[in-house]
This record gives sequence, C-alpha cells and structure tokens, in this order.
Amino acid sequence: MAGSKSGPGIERVAILGLGLIGGSLGLALRKRGVKEVAGYDRHPETIETALTLGAINRPAADPATAVQGAQVVILAVPVGALGSLAGSIVPFLDPEAIVTDTGSVKGAVVRDLEAIFRDRARYVGGHPMAGSERAGIAAADGYLLENAVYVLTPTPATDTRALKSLEGLFQSLGSRVITLDPDEHDLIVAGVSHLPHFLAVSLVQAAGELAREHPLALMLAAGGFRDTTRIAGGDPVMWRDIFLYNREAILALLKSWRCQIDALEEMIRAGDATGLETVLNEARALRARVPARQKGLLPALHELVVTVPDRPGVIGAMATSLGDAGINIIDIEILRVREGEGGSIRLGFTTAAAATRALEILQNSGINVRLLENA
Amino acid sequence: MAGSKSGPGIERVAILGLGLIGGSLGLALRKRGVKEVAGYDRHPETIETALTLGAINRPAADPATAVQGAQVVILAVPVGALGSLAGSIVPFLDPEAIVTDTGSVKGAVVRDLEAIFRDRARYVGGHPMAGSERAGIAAADGYLLENAVYVLTPTPATDTRALKSLEGLFQSLGSRVITLDPDEHDLIVAGVSHLPHFLAVSLVQAAGELAREHPLALMLAAGGFRDTTRIAGGDPVMWRDIFLYNREAILALLKSWRCQIDALEEMIRAGDATGLETVLNEARALRARVPARQKGLLPALHELVVTVPDRPGVIGAMATSLGDAGINIIDIEILRVREGEGGSIRLGFTTAAAATRALEILQNSGINVRLLENA
Repeated sequence: MAGSKSGPGIERVAILGLGLIGGSLGLALRKRGVKEVAGYDRHPETIETALTLGAINRPAADPATAVQGAQVVILAVPVGALGSLAGSIVPFLDPEAIVTDTGSVKGAVVRDLEAIFRDRARYVGGHPMAGSERAGIAAADGYLLENAVYVLTPTPATDTRALKSLEGLFQSLGSRVITLDPDEHDLIVAGVSHLPHFLAVSLVQAAGELAREHPLALMLAAGGFRDTTRIAGGDPVMWRDIFLYNREAILALLKSWRCQIDALEEMIRAGDATGLETVLNEARALRARVPARQKGLLPALHELVVTVPDRPGVIGAMATSLGDAGINIIDIEILRVREGEGGSIRLGFTTAAAATRALEILQNSGINVRLLENA
Repeated sequence: MAGSKSGPGIERVAILGLGLIGGSLGLALRKRGVKEVAGYDRHPETIETALTLGAINRPAADPATAVQGAQVVILAVPVGALGSLAGSIVPFLDPEAIVTDTGSVKGAVVRDLEAIFRDRARYVGGHPMAGSERAGIAAADGYLLENAVYVLTPTPATDTRALKSLEGLFQSLGSRVITLDPDEHDLIVAGVSHLPHFLAVSLVQAAGELAREHPLALMLAAGGFRDTTRIAGGDPVMWRDIFLYNREAILALLKSWRCQIDALEEMIRAGDATGLETVLNEARALRARVPARQKGLLPALHELVVTVPDRPGVIGAMATSLGDAGINIIDIEILRVREGEGGSIRLGFTTAAAATRALEILQNSGINVRLLENA
C-alpha cells in the first residue's frame, strides 16, 4: 500500500467543498501523486487556503469549471447542500465520471443523488468515518483518513466498475473501505454517532442549566465530562443537517434507548444494587470491544508508562535512546505533568517485543518505567 | 509549592484502601517527604504491591494497626464500605487525629461519618476530583492529584484547624483545594460526573443492542463514540455505590435533563432546523467554557502540529533539538500515524513565545509544522 504512488489509474479529481473532509482528501490525494486535484468552495478565501496548503492544485471559480475533465468528483459539502450542488454540475460532467459524496447520512441522500445522476454519471454514495471537533480547511490533515473506515453504499443501481475504482482510490489513501446498504449505514451511525452526539448536547445543556445556580459546576466538570461531551463541539450546521436527514433512524433509536434509560433510572430509584452492578459490568465489557480511536483496525498497542523529571530535553533523550536501538514509538501521551518537577508519559509500541526491549533500555538508563497491565 | 518538602507539619498518615486514589495519595505523600505512610487494604497482595511501589512504608495487617499514631487518616474505600470501616477504627484513633474520606458522594457520607467520629476524632469530608478509567493499585500515580481539584466539604460541626491542616496537606501535593457544602457538592457532581456516567452506560447498552442485529456497529463506533463512553469503563462497584448514595441528586437532575431530551427530540421530529441550529450553537459555546482535562487550572496551551515521517528516532530528534534550545514540551500527542510513512504530532508549550521559538527551530530543520489556530 505505502508504495503505490499513482492510485488505480485516476489522475484528475475534483473536490467540491473544501472543509475538513474535502481538504484532507485533497492533501491525501496529492500526497499519493494524483496529478490534478481541482477544488471549489463557496468561500473564495477557502479555495486560496486549500491551494496554499497543497490540498488542490487547480482552483476553480465555480462547480462547473471544477468538474470539467474530472474522472472522480467528490461532493464534500453538508448533507443539506448536496442536492442543489449535484443538480448544478450535471450538465458539465464527463459521462464516464464517477461521482461520490461524503455525507454522514446515506439513505435519503443516495436516493436523491441516484435520481439526479441517473444516465449522466456513475454515482456511488460514501462516508469517510473520520472527523475532528475542529472544522474547516485549517484543520485539514493529509493523514485524517489513514486507518479510518471509509463506507461506500452501493445499491442495485450502482455501476460495479465505478465502485471498484473508488474502493481502490480510497484504499490507496490508507482507508479501510467497507460496503454497506445505505439504510443499514444510517441505522448504525444513528446508534454509534448521532445518538452519542444528541446525548452530548443534552448533557452540556443540563450542565449549563446547573451552572446558572452553581457557577462552580463548569470548573468541576472533570475529564469524564469533557470526554463525554467532546463531540458537542462539532459543527452546528453539519449536525443540524444530520439530525434532520437521519430523522427516522435517530427517532427509532431514541425510542429503544429510552427503555435503557427508564430501566436504569428505575434501578436507582429502587436501590437495586445487584441490578446496577450487573448493568455496569455489562457496559464495561461491551465497551472494551470497541476498537481504539483511529487505530482501531491496527493491532492492539503494547504500552509502557514512564515517570520522568520535567525539564527540557527529557522526552528527546528518551525517544532518541529508543530510536538508536531501532525501536519505533507508535504512540506517546503525557499523562500528567507538574511544571519544574516531572510527570508520567505513556509510550505505545506495535509489538510486545518492542515494548519489552524499550522497557529494558529505559530501565538501564535509570528511568522509572513499568509495563501497562492491560497491554 | 514545588520546594516545600515537609508539608504542614504532618509526619504520619494512614491510608485505608489502597486502590487508585489511596495508592496515588500514598505515592504523592511519600514523594513530598511525609515520614510514615501506613497502609491497609482488605487484599493482602495489594498491601504488598503498595509497599513495593513505595506508596506506603508501613504495611498494616488490619485497620486498627494502620491508624495507630496517625495524625491524618484517609479512608479511600468505595462509598458503600465507608461506614463499617469508620466504625471499626474509632477505638484506635488518636483523639487529635484528623480523619477524611475520598468518597465521590458527600451529603449522606458526611452525615454518617460525622456521627461516627463525633468526639472521637476530627472528621472532614473530601473528594479528590481525579480519576482514570483504570482502577486499582497498579494504576496508582504520584502525579494523579497534581493540578486536580480537591474538594473538602466542611459543615458547621467541622474543626477549623483540622480543615486548615488538610487544605495545607493537599495543596502541598499540588492539588487545588476548594470547599463546598456537602449537598451542593453532590448536586454538582451529579450533573458533571454522575449523569454523564449514567448516559455513557445507557449508550453502550444501546450500541450493544444494535450490534446484536448489525455486528458492524461496534467496528464503526468511531472516535466520538469511544470518547463519549470512556467513563463507562469505570469500576462497576464504585459506580454502583455512587448511583445509590447520590440517588436523590441524580434523580432530580435526570428529571430536568429529560426536559432537554424531550425538547431536542421534538425539534428533530418537527424538522425544526432553526431550533436545532440554535441549540447546537449554544452547546458548542457552553462546552468551550469547560476547562481542559487535568490541566484545566493551568494557563491555556500553545500548540503546534507537525507532520513527520514515521521512523524510529524522529520524535527523539525533534524533541532533542527543542530541548537543546531550552524549550520544554509540556504536552505531546500523536494524532494520526501510518506505520512506515508518517503522521501528525501535536506539541504543547506553556507560553506563546516558546511555541513560536519551537516553530522557527522546527521549520529551520525542514519539518512541516504549523501553529494551531485555537492556541
């Protein structure tokens, strides 16, 4: 994978909408050696930025110009804007062009876009499952799609060769491509993405309500609260559209989720210690089965925790001594740090052997280090 | 702070319960130079581990032995076990001893323990607001309480000098000590900690339900789902007790939170785009006011993102060149990585000047680096 520079014969791509996803796709495609990445965005300054960052190399003043000659056209605008954008480019597409979108909702979108592109281009719905709480071209990252799941949603009407081309293209960017029925996709993301977002928003609101009478509430909102509500920092327009376009699946899931809530609340009200413990144990076991963020499709990490003095150069010295031994640190996180004194750092390695070697090397340098139990 | 080795005249501390919090307190106290940290746990092997790790230096076979001669006694067991443990040590306490607990619920606990210790010791309720999804002595960390909020919950019955002593002791460990009425504490943590936990558990259950029919659901659970449900990995027994002991506050908050949920669901059902966008904007603004994890009480970080090739030694070389220039990396995170090729790394610095210097140095080394916009 790492060596295939040209991709599967695709040399001209157009991206319409240069936000986080569009910009990141552009950076990745250019990095993979795609010759021409044309780009359009409704904000001219975004086109400028995309050009400067190297996410596109042919700026276009309008969608029609952008798609001219493109073998693949990627529509990377909010779900609510897809229909009118699609309509506006139809007359300008090469009849062999493959069109895909990156919308987070697929059922309604795929039905709309299939109707628009029928006999005019070869359309396949798509959803790259990568994101960030930061939006916009400034947050674009050529590595965003690496190891991310990229869902394509073919239907009986889909052109099989177009599907294969897109699979190859996104695989060449390092994504793990899977195919799903559009409606099944919507139900699944409603459960693992839209419902969590819905709850995060409601939780932030409840905390805000509380903070009106108890101003310390926001200050005491500890790590758990921040983690649980991180996604509530997402782009409001994008999420408004998701909630509206995936309404049916979200409402269905809310209904079944309310049963869980009602049961839990009843256990608390009734003081049912055994019931609560059972549920909490189940939830912990179930969550342990969710793959880790971004790297979910790579093997589990083998981790060390080191306690080091906090002064310039310490991380460098440590990382250099591991680098000298040919050991690659695949993940690093400063867990806690006290300025002027020291802190704990977690280091991740891809193999148990690398972690064990690193443990020895660091111990021999007199560094306080231990293997993480769950590694 | 960093220089005061002896703490405020306290030389003998006993810790009962050597889990994550008890163990971390022990490590921090020993590091601060407290002469004797006696420790008891109902699992003898945990006492052994605590001794080996240096979290205690006087192991005790039972609570009575542990508390003998202690100036400060810290009860660090699950909330449901506090009452009987407290009762068992009363006859063995020095009458001047200060007793505190680390329970996550305070109203009911403080009422119980004040009654037990009245005229027998000087009790002050406490709650160190630090945690980890890892539990037990193996996860103990001498830096866990650094920069964490440590809540003490005095009442009209509290001995003022005992309160001052504990404030000084926990401040000497680097915690930010604040005082709160026990019931106000419970209401606030119900909102910012217990309700989030409740929702995380319900969310994991809903995803589990979904995964029974759609096995891909867990695989597609992206970063957002993992973040939102991280706390559902917490210790089931501890959380069972929290739900039961803080029942009233949790039920009250559930009630007001259900109003938020009902309103949001109604907006989705009615297709109210304007209403949804308003709520999503509000939630995003509100969440931005929550201080960042662990470091919430430190100044904001100034951050860079570098894109580097992924090979042994790269992090080391980079960190060393910054260290050579006297620039201290206060935070580091590998954002995305593709094995064999490269990735993005976020570096945090305490001052804008340090970040700017680092930017120059890295750029001069030909490294692809940019300042984070929100820094």
